[in-house]
Amino acid sequence: MTELTDITALLLSRIRDVADYPEPGVMFKDITPLLADPAAFTALTDAFAEVAERTGATKVVGLEARGFILGAPVAVRAGLGFVPVRKAGKLPGATLAQAYDLEYGSAEIEIHAEDLTADDRILVVDDVLATGGTAEASIQLIQRAGAEVAGVAVLMELGFLNGRPRLEAALDGAPVEALLTV
Amino acid sequence: MTELTDITALLLSRIRDVADYPEPGVMFKDITPLLADPAAFTALTDAFAEVAERTGATKVVGLEARGFILGAPVAVRAGLGFVPVRKAGKLPGATLAQAYDLEYGSAEIEIHAEDLTADDRILVVDDVLATGGTAEASIQLIQRAGAEVAGVAVLMELGFLNGRPRLEAALDGAPVEALLTV
Repeated sequence: MTELTDITALLLSRIRDVADYPEPGVMFKDITPLLADPAAFTALTDAFAEVAERTGATKVVGLEARGFILGAPVAVRAGLGFVPVRKAGKLPGATLAQAYDLEYGSAEIEIHAEDLTADDRILVVDDVLATGGTAEASIQLIQRAGAEVAGVAVLMELGFLNGRPRLEAALDGAPVEALLTV
Repeated sequence: MTELTDITALLLSRIRDVADYPEPGVMFKDITPLLADPAAFTALTDAFAEVAERTGATKVVGLEARGFILGAPVAVRAGLGFVPVRKAGKLPGATLAQAYDLEYGSAEIEIHAEDLTADDRILVVDDVLATGGTAEASIQLIQRAGAEVAGVAVLMELGFLNGRPRLEAALDGAPVEALLTV
């Protein structure tokens, strides 16, 4: 964990607080300054790639859309395939779909089951762990596709929203790794 | 161009035709098999990174959402920053917005102008060059933000839709590089 600790200050310094987005009263954590800084983006990618290697991941799943930006470089850096989990209707051809609850109503995400095999161990990558609804639905999709989840890796965990116990209950022992807790 | 030619067969073999998506009569080029194959995804990333280096790019702009998956690894591989161009309403804080025409109606994309400087040379990355509407609007956004466009790099050019002349007119001599023409 030493290396992760060393990059904490760098990563934190490149995350911008934006008040009242996406709605009044919410303080949004904007990662675009981090992405624009090659040193920070590379350090983040290396930290995630280390998680992929340590957990024995064979593929990286990124969650639309910020999980695409963070997860795809991890796949290339670690020499693994990348599989997108997309919002409903965005993937062509046959898909597996999983609904999950939002604060008001529900939403659905999809995956191409044929991109996963029974031998695959999947690292799920996203920017933020909040209530864990999307990540939990992604775990369910991966398990329904017949693969195993090696772990979940996020840049930021919003600890006060209690997403972690929900994911750990779905994960059967695989780790939830957050580089920052805010 | 020798290296690009050598990977053409590999990339083509990992693109799947899906009939009648997103609407009847359209043959969609699905890149998810390519993403899931580490050899193909790495070869694609290396080819784009070579374009970034050759054109003197200082940052990579990826277009939501498949341009995020293809562009972010190029930024990390080439040691450059990454800047997302997003659909309207998805970026927090102050943005520059640019409208463009669709077949029916219009749409809008946005960028954080503060992520670009007058010294930046931007490589725009996306999966497909079709009519060029989104890429042209991205070029206009980058130029309005005060930066220069170093080039546009896409995996596939749909030549029959004539997007290339439209981009070249907006680019003032910078190249449009397509790894495959379909």
